[in-house]
This record gives sequence, C-alpha cells and structure tokens, in this order.
Amino acid sequence: MAPPVRKGRGGVKKGGRGRGAPSWKVGEVAKVLAPVRKLRESMLKTETKPTKTLADLKIAGALREVLEFVPEQVRRSVERILAAVARTIMMGEGVSYVVPTRSAGNQRYVEEIDRIVLMDKSSTRQFANSATVRKSAITTRILGKVWELCTTGIHTTKRDLFYTDVKLFKTQTDSDEVLNDVACLIGCTRTSLSVVASEKGIVIGRVQFREAGDLINCARMGVGGKAIPPYVERITDIQSDALFILLVEKDAAFMRLAEDRFYDTYPCIIITAKGQPDVATRLFLKKLRATLNIPILGLVDSDPYGLKILSVYSSGSKNMSYDSANLTTPDIKWLGVLPSDLDKYGIPDQCRLEMTENDIKTGKELLEEDFIKKNPAWLKELQIMVTKKEKAEIQALSTFGFQYLTKQYLPRKLEQGDWI
Amino acid sequence: MAPPVRKGRGGVKKGGRGRGAPSWKVGEVAKVLAPVRKLRESMLKTETKPTKTLADLKIAGALREVLEFVPEQVRRSVERILAAVARTIMMGEGVSYVVPTRSAGNQRYVEEIDRIVLMDKSSTRQFANSATVRKSAITTRILGKVWELCTTGIHTTKRDLFYTDVKLFKTQTDSDEVLNDVACLIGCTRTSLSVVASEKGIVIGRVQFREAGDLINCARMGVGGKAIPPYVERITDIQSDALFILLVEKDAAFMRLAEDRFYDTYPCIIITAKGQPDVATRLFLKKLRATLNIPILGLVDSDPYGLKILSVYSSGSKNMSYDSANLTTPDIKWLGVLPSDLDKYGIPDQCRLEMTENDIKTGKELLEEDFIKKNPAWLKELQIMVTKKEKAEIQALSTFGFQYLTKQYLPRKLEQGDWI
Repeated sequence: MAPPVRKGRGGVKKGGRGRGAPSWKVGEVAKVLAPVRKLRESMLKTETKPTKTLADLKIAGALREVLEFVPEQVRRSVERILAAVARTIMMGEGVSYVVPTRSAGNQRYVEEIDRIVLMDKSSTRQFANSATVRKSAITTRILGKVWELCTTGIHTTKRDLFYTDVKLFKTQTDSDEVLNDVACLIGCTRTSLSVVASEKGIVIGRVQFREAGDLINCARMGVGGKAIPPYVERITDIQSDALFILLVEKDAAFMRLAEDRFYDTYPCIIITAKGQPDVATRLFLKKLRATLNIPILGLVDSDPYGLKILSVYSSGSKNMSYDSANLTTPDIKWLGVLPSDLDKYGIPDQCRLEMTENDIKTGKELLEEDFIKKNPAWLKELQIMVTKKEKAEIQALSTFGFQYLTKQYLPRKLEQGDWI
Repeated sequence: MAPPVRKGRGGVKKGGRGRGAPSWKVGEVAKVLAPVRKLRESMLKTETKPTKTLADLKIAGALREVLEFVPEQVRRSVERILAAVARTIMMGEGVSYVVPTRSAGNQRYVEEIDRIVLMDKSSTRQFANSATVRKSAITTRILGKVWELCTTGIHTTKRDLFYTDVKLFKTQTDSDEVLNDVACLIGCTRTSLSVVASEKGIVIGRVQFREAGDLINCARMGVGGKAIPPYVERITDIQSDALFILLVEKDAAFMRLAEDRFYDTYPCIIITAKGQPDVATRLFLKKLRATLNIPILGLVDSDPYGLKILSVYSSGSKNMSYDSANLTTPDIKWLGVLPSDLDKYGIPDQCRLEMTENDIKTGKELLEEDFIKKNPAWLKELQIMVTKKEKAEIQALSTFGFQYLTKQYLPRKLEQGDWI
C-alpha cells in the first residue's frame, strides 16, 4: 500500500547520532519547527498574566486547595493536630477528626481553571462511635507514621506504609484512603507526606537536572532513557533548550523515538508513563512545564482511553481531585493520533479496529465531560471517533514502515501545526 | 513489637550521600561483606573451568541451541532460507518450512547445564496445505520484515511488527508465535531479529557502561535509577567495583535501597524488573554476570511466585526454552525473604498471609520441578512454605521500621552469608 509520502525530507539520520555536524537539512528542520516556535511565543506572551487559582475565583463552597509542604511543615502540622486531640481528650471530649469528604458528590470541574476540584463538605470522624472508631484509629496511626517519615527525612511506598500495621489497616485500600484523607486534613499534597506510589515513567531528550544531587543529562541516556524518580522534589536545577515536550502514551512509541534520537533533530523532551499516568510522572511533567514554559504535545492512541489519559494529565483524576492544582498541567495539545488522522494519513482498514460497546460507552461519557465540551476541537474529534466507531493505536502508523512515525508523521504534524 | 536488633551498626548514613569521607565504620562493613567476598573468590576459582554447553553434553535428541547473531548474519540467513524457497518453487515443489516444535512436550530440563532446553522435534509448514497455509504465509512475511529491520539497522517492538500486516496476522499472538519460530529456524536469539518486547527494568549502583555510545554511571542516577534498555547489545564497556548484584523482585524494595544509597555502603549493583522478569532485564543481568563474574543475590517475596521469578532468571521460562542459553544466569543465590526468615526475624503474625489454594498448588508444583529438586536447600525452604501455608512480602519487614530492610535485615543476611 502506498503511504502518503513526505518528499524532500532529510529526517533523522540513519544509525548515526546526529551530533557534531548535523546531516539533516537545517532549513528543513527550522520549517518543521516554525509552528511550534509560534505556539511557544504565544505562551510566553499570555503567561505574563498570573494564572488564576481557586482562591482568586472565590467559588462558594470550594475547598482551599492543598499545597506543597516541606517535611518540617508537615511535622509541625501533625503536631498541631495531635496537640488539639490531646486537649479534647483532657477536656473529656474524646478524639475526633474533621475530614474533608472526597466522594464524587463533593467534586466539581471548574472551567476557569480547567481542573476538577474538591468542594468543602466534610465529616466528623469520632473515636467514640462504633461507625467511625476504626477509621479514626487508622487516621491517628497514619498521622504518627507520617510524623516519623518527616522527622527522619526519608520516603516510603504506600505498600510499605500498609505493612507497618497490617493488623489495624487490614487492607491496603484502607491505609491508602486514609492517607489521602490525612493529606486533605493537613492541607498538603500526598507527596508532601513522603509516601509515594511506584514509579513507571521514563524520560529522554534535551533536558538536564540534578536528582538528589546527581547531574543527569537526559540527552545522554542511551536508548533506554532515565527512570522518572518517585520523589519529584529531589529534582532541581532543570535546564533545557527544548522547544516542546512530547508526551507519549505507550512505551513502544517511546522506544522508536528514543532509538531514532528524535530529540537530536527536533529539540524536545520525550516522556511516557507507559499507559495510565502515575503521580510521579504527572508531577514531573508539571515541574518541567512550570520551569521551562514550553508547549506539551500529546501522542496517544486514537481511542477513548488515549483521550482519557490526556485528560488526566491536563484536568486531573477524580480520585486525587483535592490535589488537582499540583498534579495537573493545563493546556496540553492533542497532537495525535487524531480520529481524523486515520483518513488524512490513509491508515488502511485492517489497521483500524472496531470499537467495542464498552469503548463506545466510554467515548459517549467523555462527550458529556465539561473538560471535553469546553474544547470544541477535541469535541469534534471525539464525535468523529464515536460516529465512525473506529479506533487505532499509535502503532497503526507502522503499516507504512517502522520509522514512518519519526520520519514522516511527526514532522508533518509539527510543520502543519496540526494539534488541537 | 520488639524487632531483633542488630547492635553496634553504623549502617547507611542518614540523609547523606555517603561519598567522600565515609561516616560508616569501615571495619564493620568489611565484616559484613566477608562472606560475599569469599563467595566471589570461590567463583573465580571454579570459573576457570569452561562452562558446559548443550553441545558438550551430546544429549540425544537435543536441539542445537540458538546463538546471538549480528544483523548482517541474520540478513544472510534470511536470504539463504528464501533462496531455498525460490528454488523449490521453481522445481515445482512449492513452499515449505521445517520449523522446530516449541510445545511443552518438546522441552526438557537438563541438570548438567541447569536450564530448560528445546528438543529436536520439528514440523513441516507447507503452503499448499489448508492446515498450514496461513502459518507458512505469516512465516514468509515475518522473514521479510526481519530482513528489512536487519538491513536498516533499527529495532522494533512486537506490537509494531504486528501492525505491519494486521490483515494477515489477525492477532498479535500469531505474529509473536511465528517470530519465535523464525528465531528457531534461523538458529538465532529473538533479540538478534531486532524485535523487542517493552522495557520494564531499572538499575542503580556501582556500575558504569556505554549505552549507544553514551557514558552511563549508575552510581549517579539520583533516586530513580536508569531504565534498562530494550537492546542489550547497545551496552558496551561495562566497568564496576561492585562485589555482588542484588536482584530485587519489586520496585518498592528497589526504591528503599535506592533512596538509602545502599550501594554506597555495600558495593553492589541493584536491579529490578518490577515483577515478572522481562527479556531485556534477563539479558542485562546475564551480561553483567558474564562481564563482571560477581555473585547474584536474589531478594524476593516469600511466596511461590517469588521463587518462580528467581527460577526464570536462573533456569529459564518454558516459552523461551529455545533461547535458554542466552537468557538464563545460573547459580543465583536465594538471599531472602526465606520462609525460615519469618520465624528467625520474628515477623509478626499479622504480616504473614495465609496462602491461597492456588498458592499452595503452585508451591506443590514447584516441589516437583527438577531445578528445585537439585538444590536441597531450596527444596527444604519451599517445603517449610508449603507446610506452614504462610507467605510474606518483602514489605513485611517494614513492620520493624521503614529502613529495617537496608539497615538491619540485609547487612545481617550478608554478614552471616545467609543465602542458599
């Protein structure tokens, strides 16, 4: 089958490293990069206005959002909370905690700041009440463990935390849930509590930083890339000459981009969380964006889950809505694979998959989401997907050759500024 | 609860980097490391004898094992196979391939070399036969694609390969299966075909190497570590002053070891595949072992799956038996968590989990495996597990404190040479 050919392109050097004297045509690359340069410039202009926060909006019933705390602040907060508890005990009033409610009914998408936030409903967790005695005991235990972590200055995983008192916690879900409650209670991010989930993400490309003091140059990370650390606050001194961040859903595409050293030709930073975004990768992306102020272009499968993944990066997940300000990176551009790309790039029928009923259901649910509705271009593309009932993976581009992604598709998308 | 305390241990420096003037007691560390030093010395003595290969054993009915090929060799082999096919077509005999059978019945564990190998049964895949026409067409197509990869000198993933001809392959299982057949047919490893699975593993510690030309120092990889690349042949110039490799089942333990910079105090290389070992991590481990000739100590959950994971590293998986020589690293020591450690280290009851029926079944099946039987110490520990019907994760050690693993458990295990 004949792929739509991009003529006269130098593309990525075959087998070479693309360092020293470049073999690609400099003028060509500059032409490809012109739209992304323009996008960056427009960002620099608008970013001079301070970004709105939840506090600026003064929305009735919205919770004050949680903040990044250093361990010392967390330690002091825990001590304040427990001192108050000691006081109520001595006054004969027993133990209780007022904990923000984190259920779906207490969440709202706020268009002005383009994020899901937590509202201010809360519930009282009394020790002297058979319905809440266990949860209040777990809350006390977790407060103690968090104090210990902040005092010794180390991190731990949610799994390790669970194992410190299996008898009380019973299941990891219980300790995980209360851990989120404790973050809300203190008013800090979960990461500030020094408890992390496992790391999944990898990064490669034109960025260097210090990680726990070690100098890491991601342009010299071979073909495998650097594992994104679970503790983003250990990353400092970020420096980069990249023009954009390429956020990739899956590792197969990441591996292609890494082996072809795509970032040597097109100055960018390539990130993947290998599927569903984890907290560490989201924090890392946010930190890069905040420091470098460069556009983020998303490359995901053309299916509802690809779009959902993009939306978790940009608008947040419901489970962590209390922490959306710290975890979300608004204004991520959907570069591909757009549902309209399937026809535009002539993806053959056998590489398109029929959407399952579940896919269609998920797609239709997304159509109703506020964060999709407010972006007419996203809405239109999602409608194409749901109407045609067709999906395709990034890998479908391999039908035109293994390097079609890096040598044809991406350069063409960039040159045409074909993102939404 | 009172953990069994190790007295007088400096352990890992709190918060510090452990570089420059070390704050731990040098004499203490030397004492802890004495048994592993002895193990290393015994390895150096025995390793002067050449290791036995399948060819040396002259086992009747055993297949010649596959070898690492460079792309040029693969290209020539494909051309030879297809030239032979062209000849038979011109002679009016049609197209057929003689493919080694890879089913369980054609596999055997060979004790002398401590690996599962493939026997020499094979089947003929004719094009002019309705039962084999599809498989022989897929074989031809994959041979063509492999030729293309070897000629352009790039790698691809199994998923990308599938997408080059969805109409023919139908499911990825079909293209994956034939890919293994083609490796057997050519007589090379699957990795030699330039087709890789996704990468999962991470490494940190006292080793440096070049990866696709970039110099990587794994002792300067912050707290997140370096992603193990999918293409192990891109790794060259391995150098290390490590005394041993610590192979860790899960990333929670890896993260603890990385943050505490365990390798600064106890010179080692720490590797994890985050669960089930993938091909890239197995190849990387093998390459480290072959280059450095240092012992490998395994730290896995005390359950049948932990042991199974160790056995995949050391004796191979049935699915890739044709490639066992290249993928397995014999003589991995089981450091922990040993079923007998649960009592020895006083792991409290609530951190031990009851084995499910499925766990017990898997454990009993393992008891029957040749590669367990030939190691009496492993057999004994597995019997303890199956008899007590108790399991425990590495994380169970956190019951004594988050850093119990790095400051107490591992140093004590090392000092006592308590591996089997």
